Amino acid sequence: MTTFASESATGAETGNKIVLGSNQYGKAEVRLVKITRDTKRHEIEDLNVTSQLHGDFLAAHIDGDNGHVVATDTQKNTVYAFARDGVGSPEEFLARLGKHFTSEFDWVTGGRWAAEQYFWDRIQDHDHAFSRNKSEIRTAVLEIRDGETSVLAGIRDLTVLKSTASEFRGFPRDKYTTLQETDDRILATDVTARWRYNSKTAASGGIDFNAVYASVRELLLAGFAATHSYALQQTMFEMGKAVLEAHPEIEEIRFSLPNKHHFLVDLSPFGQDNPNEVFFAADRPYGLIEATITREGVPANHTIWENTPGFC
Amino acid sequence: MTTFASESATGAETGNKIVLGSNQYGKAEVRLVKITRDTKRHEIEDLNVTSQLHGDFLAAHIDGDNGHVVATDTQKNTVYAFARDGVGSPEEFLARLGKHFTSEFDWVTGGRWAAEQYFWDRIQDHDHAFSRNKSEIRTAVLEIRDGETSVLAGIRDLTVLKSTASEFRGFPRDKYTTLQETDDRILATDVTARWRYNSKTAASGGIDFNAVYASVRELLLAGFAATHSYALQQTMFEMGKAVLEAHPEIEEIRFSLPNKHHFLVDLSPFGQDNPNEVFFAADRPYGLIEATITREGVPANHTIWENTPGFC
Amino acid sequence: MTTFASESATGAETGNKIVLGSNQYGKAEVRLVKITRDTKRHEIEDLNVTSQLHGDFLAAHIDGDNGHVVATDTQKNTVYAFARDGVGSPEEFLARLGKHFTSEFDWVTGGRWAAEQYFWDRIQDHDHAFSRNKSEIRTAVLEIRDGETSVLAGIRDLTVLKSTASEFRGFPRDKYTTLQETDDRILATDVTARWRYNSKTAASGGIDFNAVYASVRELLLAGFAATHSYALQQTMFEMGKAVLEAHPEIEEIRFSLPNKHHFLVDLSPFGQDNPNEVFFAADRPYGLIEATITREGVPANHTIWENTPGFC
Amino acid sequence: MTTFASESATGAETGNKIVLGSNQYGKAEVRLVKITRDTKRHEIEDLNVTSQLHGDFLAAHIDGDNGHVVATDTQKNTVYAFARDGVGSPEEFLARLGKHFTSEFDWVTGGRWAAEQYFWDRIQDHDHAFSRNKSEIRTAVLEIRDGETSVLAGIRDLTVLKSTASEFRGFPRDKYTTLQETDDRILATDVTARWRYNSKTAASGGIDFNAVYASVRELLLAGFAATHSYALQQTMFEMGKAVLEAHPEIEEIRFSLPNKHHFLVDLSPFGQDNPNEVFFAADRPYGLIEATITREGVPANHTIWENTPGFC
Repeated sequence: MTTFASESATGAETGNKIVLGSNQYGKAEVRLVKITRDTKRHEIEDLNVTSQLHGDFLAAHIDGDNGHVVATDTQKNTVYAFARDGVGSPEEFLARLGKHFTSEFDWVTGGRWAAEQYFWDRIQDHDHAFSRNKSEIRTAVLEIRDGETSVLAGIRDLTVLKSTASEFRGFPRDKYTTLQETDDRILATDVTARWRYNSKTAASGGIDFNAVYASVRELLLAGFAATHSYALQQTMFEMGKAVLEAHPEIEEIRFSLPNKHHFLVDLSPFGQDNPNEVFFAADRPYGLIEATITREGVPANHTIWENTPGFC
Repeated sequence: MTTFASESATGAETGNKIVLGSNQYGKAEVRLVKITRDTKRHEIEDLNVTSQLHGDFLAAHIDGDNGHVVATDTQKNTVYAFARDGVGSPEEFLARLGKHFTSEFDWVTGGRWAAEQYFWDRIQDHDHAFSRNKSEIRTAVLEIRDGETSVLAGIRDLTVLKSTASEFRGFPRDKYTTLQETDDRILATDVTARWRYNSKTAASGGIDFNAVYASVRELLLAGFAATHSYALQQTMFEMGKAVLEAHPEIEEIRFSLPNKHHFLVDLSPFGQDNPNEVFFAADRPYGLIEATITREGVPANHTIWENTPGFC
Repeated sequence: MTTFASESATGAETGNKIVLGSNQYGKAEVRLVKITRDTKRHEIEDLNVTSQLHGDFLAAHIDGDNGHVVATDTQKNTVYAFARDGVGSPEEFLARLGKHFTSEFDWVTGGRWAAEQYFWDRIQDHDHAFSRNKSEIRTAVLEIRDGETSVLAGIRDLTVLKSTASEFRGFPRDKYTTLQETDDRILATDVTARWRYNSKTAASGGIDFNAVYASVRELLLAGFAATHSYALQQTMFEMGKAVLEAHPEIEEIRFSLPNKHHFLVDLSPFGQDNPNEVFFAADRPYGLIEATITREGVPANHTIWENTPGFC
Repeated sequence: MTTFASESATGAETGNKIVLGSNQYGKAEVRLVKITRDTKRHEIEDLNVTSQLHGDFLAAHIDGDNGHVVATDTQKNTVYAFARDGVGSPEEFLARLGKHFTSEFDWVTGGRWAAEQYFWDRIQDHDHAFSRNKSEIRTAVLEIRDGETSVLAGIRDLTVLKSTASEFRGFPRDKYTTLQETDDRILATDVTARWRYNSKTAASGGIDFNAVYASVRELLLAGFAATHSYALQQTMFEMGKAVLEAHPEIEEIRFSLPNKHHFLVDLSPFGQDNPNEVFFAADRPYGLIEATITREGVPANHTIWENTPGFC
């Protein structure tokens, strides 16, 4: 049988047989805190782990027969048990989970494992006291399908703003266009990015996932800061290009960037000028700019995106 | 050129040309309240609309040339202008938007339009006073791609619970399994479902989207309530099957159902029994059960899902 | 010693002795679901309970001596154990908890117990299948202080809207005033209200808390719907007056009402009129209108409000 | 007239006259971003401002007469107009607003002005590119009542954790106690603290609010990290004491500290030990530890707390 989509048969009054299509199940948001205390200087790893299995689960859906249903509670236990030996990086931890489930149970032919990682800073360089750095969240997704392992890394909630060097001009005007052109506006966004590693390079163990994450993060920040922006689209492309140029092990990167509008307040009724100093930061609506930056020849679709929001 | 993924060329130090892949942009979460006041008995329609365009936006990404960038502000204005003539149903409203943008601008070859609808009840049958019914949110997505229009309808945040007639037994046990079997547990979930309409039927105007929504909602509730549950997977399949059997205009339905655990509290240390009466409602982790229920012969993938979370 | 504020003594370099003032501690957000299954027709009570103790906890603060610290885990266990005998109403359930803790432990001289209650509707009149009614949340607070028991009931998240019969005119104009007068606007708010029961009447057992809640809810909705509004302040006063007039057991009621702005969209650039039909529902900022409606002679302050947001 | 509580008279069927008690109104959550661009090195100030007025607003409530109702829209405009001249510190900005409203309008006898401030770091020391530092939020409240000005400063969402040096032992045991003693646990909390400045010192202009904020923040972190904890109560007291000892201009400090439980996972069913390494981070319920740390002789209550959650 195929790994992910199962066929089933039940009577259907409308003349079509109704069947089970693609499916997955598991335990979501297992909150794991791992303290490494080999020395007096503790380390902390803080993750939110989701495990989902693919395979032959037809009987559970059709007959309520759970003989193949590795309990989601069991999946949770496995996450904690595996953490006893350390996490290392989210990607490596997910790979250990994926290998376990697909080798332990015949009918589990694949799955999707995901994690968010939260960061902590030491308080005043203390050995065992930390404060949470909430300025970004790291994400990772690993999928096994048809014997292939794919890995996405990502970042989200990284909020950035430029107070100048951003324009928006030259756009087309129709009967519904009222927006004025500007050559100096605030540009602000929450960066959500996911990048897909070359599967062979990842499988070979040749990627230091923590180091690449740190590098990509710096490149994204630098790209945002350095680009004189004519459009958020262009800034985004420059950010992605910088990442792909520096990291041959990355095949493609996808962005979902809200354009967080900061409207210049009209102070003229009060007899004041406002030379780009006082802004109203709006909540909704917001622009939403999304794209894939990729290498020529990389296929437009990869199955891991079907089960993971690149943007949507 | 293809509609959605554009090709671009920039130099890349790593030996690969870096190009623009699939992309879209627009205005998200345009909060629209439409009052229809043709008579003293007002009607209210309350939507959160997102408009995103596909087409040739290469120059904006590569050169910051906005000649093709229909401003997201213009898209917002269009939403409000079109609402002047009424909403009707989210699906029909999105179709009007989609037709407008793809016919008005040569380089806009498609797009994705989405809406959430919020419901209001009349206060004591009053003509113009309403209270919001927050028990569910209706969703709709319309995508135009390669000249084809696809429509998804959906519901989310519909929280349901059965206080008995739910078992979980017969699952496999390995070294990480500690869960006990049960023949009487609480089953609770937040229903998120999306169903895809047959494109031809939708295009022919033969679907009363509001009526089908109301019917699907009742079928989902009835299916949840009526099924003696051996697994949430089985309950989900029965819910989906009921929808497909009743609605030939629906091709497939996808569910994402958290298994919201209610743990029986052990009261024995306090000298009390607990015959399935006192429960701790847990937040995280939760089970996550996801599947497509479909008709035999319907292709496993449809492009609209690539840009919309069926489950992920 | 007094019940709530304790005195302590530690050296202080600044010349003032630094002492412990008012304090409380306990377990927050104990999620309790109680199923009553005496018959085939089950009943569900769904609460979020917080228990906090007042008394002599000085040694814990100064010396880390926990001899008086009834563990918050013990408080949680007590909530579940007491639920075995039923909930009845949030107010009665909190009263049982309060009586227990203040009688069981000498040094516990009072406390604050609070609950939110979530509502469920039967699915199609089913015996044991329910869907959550999220349109409002019921709240209750019970405080014991100096031997006196005070009780607040409340409602929150009740979102209401009038599509006409609301004006806003005659307000003063200064140099910062740009708002235009209107004789027809949308009026919308999320009702948060708390009412305080007469302590003697409550103590006498003469209040059917569930019945009063249901009545107050209807009066608030009716008051909102029926009042031709010249200001949200006036609508609020009418809502509160109706409650106090109908319920002599209620001493005062406090409201915190956001004025959720719905801005008429200017469609004239697109050649359209907009006779109060198309609105932009804004998120922030919002007006915030707060007041106490009370009986003449009721003291302006009551201690329970110091520890519970009436409005703030 | 009194400043805050107004008297009114309306007929009441229940025999008591129903009157207006304490009340306030204004504009909440005015999102203000101020860029200072006097030099190429821009500065950013990012605030969420709320303005609420106290005074004689009786006629609006009773008669819908808005002659005294300074529109909330006017209050919003005033916030933006005043920001044109800079913010400086939240406390100073609120003081300017309070002075304006109470001097401009005869019937405005006082009010409450509040702000949250969000922090931004420079991206790689860039002149005009910033990333938001979300690890804490600064708060400020200024109240004018009976001609007196009171000022609260605060911090919230500062999440801290110690991986050892935290015990919980010696607590009383009753029939509902099942918790085991521990001499090594994770201690974690989200710090919410508010401190009240000496009104005379604040009025004299002798306080550098930004400098004190930075100092208090460091003292709170240091106090949390340095204290060997026998109870969160004791850690909290040490944190507050350190602040009061260092800052004579602060009268009292109030804390609301969730005890964010991290439960050691039992790995023994899987043949593993768990020497305080693998934890489940729970969401709810949580402990909630609240207290005032104050100077001897400072009154137990201050009116500003009645309208601001110190803890509740």
